[in-house]
Amino acid sequence: MTGSATPGAGAPAFADVAGRLADAAARIAMKYFRRDLAVDDKTDLSPVTSADREAEAAMRDILGAAFPEHGIYGEELGKDRIDAEYVWVLDPIDGTQSFVTGKPLFGTLIALTRLGVPVLGVIDAPALNERWLGIAGRPTTFNGAPARVRGCAELGRAWLYATSPQMFPGGDFDAFERLRGRVRRAVYGAECYAYGLLASGHVDLVAEATMQPYDFLALAPIVAGAGGIITDWRGEPLTLGSGGRVLAAGDARIHGAALEVLAG
Amino acid sequence: MTGSATPGAGAPAFADVAGRLADAAARIAMKYFRRDLAVDDKTDLSPVTSADREAEAAMRDILGAAFPEHGIYGEELGKDRIDAEYVWVLDPIDGTQSFVTGKPLFGTLIALTRLGVPVLGVIDAPALNERWLGIAGRPTTFNGAPARVRGCAELGRAWLYATSPQMFPGGDFDAFERLRGRVRRAVYGAECYAYGLLASGHVDLVAEATMQPYDFLALAPIVAGAGGIITDWRGEPLTLGSGGRVLAAGDARIHGAALEVLAG
Repeated sequence: MTGSATPGAGAPAFADVAGRLADAAARIAMKYFRRDLAVDDKTDLSPVTSADREAEAAMRDILGAAFPEHGIYGEELGKDRIDAEYVWVLDPIDGTQSFVTGKPLFGTLIALTRLGVPVLGVIDAPALNERWLGIAGRPTTFNGAPARVRGCAELGRAWLYATSPQMFPGGDFDAFERLRGRVRRAVYGAECYAYGLLASGHVDLVAEATMQPYDFLALAPIVAGAGGIITDWRGEPLTLGSGGRVLAAGDARIHGAALEVLAG
Repeated sequence: MTGSATPGAGAPAFADVAGRLADAAARIAMKYFRRDLAVDDKTDLSPVTSADREAEAAMRDILGAAFPEHGIYGEELGKDRIDAEYVWVLDPIDGTQSFVTGKPLFGTLIALTRLGVPVLGVIDAPALNERWLGIAGRPTTFNGAPARVRGCAELGRAWLYATSPQMFPGGDFDAFERLRGRVRRAVYGAECYAYGLLASGHVDLVAEATMQPYDFLALAPIVAGAGGIITDWRGEPLTLGSGGRVLAAGDARIHGAALEVLAG
């Protein structure tokens, strides 16, 4: 089997369920946001909260009832049937650093992959009541209205986002620093929200590393459906099997230029 | 004359006018937020927008009518009568990097100084409908309710904010990096909003540099009135004459420890 670029005939049902997943995660996230949190460290030092686990469990319940044959790959609770044609990839609270410090930019990320290729994506920012929805082959929406990237012909004019300069290991940091030296300005600290801002035409580039499939798969249909381009740092499409380096651009011209700068 | 730590008998009127200033700036900021902006660079490379200038002009009109004898020191439109007993220090849009990239964390900063000492401060985040108000000698409020810092006894448990690692020139960067190596985690990208999060007990430390009086004076009464401590990097109180290095802590114990680490 080869990857398919469309969600298939189930698209309306998939979009409906994705919305219910985001609603369920939002209710739980907001119950914990800005409350006293027991934040513990996993081995990779990401903060993990009760909200994270409870929100993923709620989403799994919905998926188990709606699509029992689909696979699920969640940040918190692991992988089930990920060799299925359709796999839901869930990050209940992306931006845990925002979440645990009271900053309202965290989001729930929901992706649906078909044969490993992301065909639907949601970024939901419950503290802001903002939601981006991307479905392969359709225009991306922001709170139901069309979202569209902006043009940016030159790297030197581009606003670049990354969550933190500390997210780049070894040579990736040098590559990021080269890119930072070529753009108009690098801004930090927005996690998944940066890709929403890019899809809505407020930001030109996002370059990140050390990301997991549940961090990046949801972003792909959103950026693509808004007219942008999102790949790994070699220019390859993002799939379940991609590494953790992501480059998103609103304009293909600076995407190509940024790839060259990252490659050195 | 020496500095006074209280706003004096005019406090209720000052708080009322500060609220009107914030309301006026918010209306103008939101008219421009997420619209196409002509962003130009000043010599210091801060982005400046029409919103910035128009919001400051509106605030100056209000102050000119309410307190014609007071001085005004604004980011955009300069200094008038700053040898007056009372001086209003205005940053119509702090967090211009957030503002021009569609990120809703920017804020209007309003300080009132008496004999050079900040006695009233407002952080208003109009895209979030969130407002912190601090008045010397009174409890800080967040949207009208009391705001309070949280305790944090050890640097190693502290969540640290800074807008960007690129805001620290020369040796200040080394000092910040030493501090970053001692805390639990450094998070970036929140500008003035980070000090509000600290005052509300979600963040433990903020360390920044290259700030101007209109960037930091409003923060002082807010942090102090919430039970925190805010000084320059030598531990001195912030005044109109302070340099641009700011250290805020929710807990005095880690403030002292952070000062030592910054000093090297």
